[in-house]
Amino acid sequence: MIILGIDPGIAILGYGVVEYSGNSFKTLDYGAILTDSKESTPNRLKKIYEELVKILDMYKPDALAIEEIFFNKNAKTAIIVGQARGVAILAAARKNLDIYEYTPLQVKQGVVGYGRAEKKQVQIMVKNFLNLKSIPKPDDVADALAVAICHAHTGRMGNIFKL
Amino acid sequence: MIILGIDPGIAILGYGVVEYSGNSFKTLDYGAILTDSKESTPNRLKKIYEELVKILDMYKPDALAIEEIFFNKNAKTAIIVGQARGVAILAAARKNLDIYEYTPLQVKQGVVGYGRAEKKQVQIMVKNFLNLKSIPKPDDVADALAVAICHAHTGRMGNIFKL
Repeated sequence: MIILGIDPGIAILGYGVVEYSGNSFKTLDYGAILTDSKESTPNRLKKIYEELVKILDMYKPDALAIEEIFFNKNAKTAIIVGQARGVAILAAARKNLDIYEYTPLQVKQGVVGYGRAEKKQVQIMVKNFLNLKSIPKPDDVADALAVAICHAHTGRMGNIFKL
Repeated sequence: MIILGIDPGIAILGYGVVEYSGNSFKTLDYGAILTDSKESTPNRLKKIYEELVKILDMYKPDALAIEEIFFNKNAKTAIIVGQARGVAILAAARKNLDIYEYTPLQVKQGVVGYGRAEKKQVQIMVKNFLNLKSIPKPDDVADALAVAICHAHTGRMGNIFKL
């Protein structure tokens, strides 16, 4: 099973593509789609969509795993991130991927085995599971890989949260 | 100039297509894209995108006018509406429309000429400007037509708020 993990944002969208089979991972790709704040919002959304379509066409993942986002404070930020998230979900939906959503607690649980794990612990586990030389940067990339790993582990255990 | 006005939402997305030339309007189309709450979010976003692409292909508008949204309270709702809004903006951006955003105050100002106008007054002016027999329902459709009219009037006066 090939899983695309995404940590959505308008300036930085982290992504990671992993193949999971026989209880082990192969890392196919990871990185960030960056958009320039000097560009218009429509152009930034278009770039995110088109770059994601390229990744989907290249790796043909079976599933998209995406973190559920919460905002306590800034509804304006929530709308902006929501727009990027909508475009990412659309790209995957148009390629007929199954799409799964995990809370931050579920991601920690699924990667570290402990829902209150610290960010650093999650990043170290990401590095270890994927046999990477270092923790991927920026954090958005490590987060995207974490949600992909979470989906692999959760799917294996049959606890699937389909969006 | 052909203007597509949109009032974005996940359950109901209101749209209106108007042609504005020589200080008068011709109403080309209006309605709502409805999605079923029993459907998954990805399928709902896909439906919105694909229906909008059909409308864009049919009327080939020059510009998209969309209302800026504010949420004081519920960031969860803001994310959901943001996702639908992102998909709508993407559809227009991929067809190379110019995209303009107006605050609710600007819409009232642009339609009624008075930023504190009541919703009903805006709806009556929409009906009058477009020579409709009745106020379009649901409110989302009237709102979409209002932002299209606002853009026509504002564009005419050279006060353009490009996204």
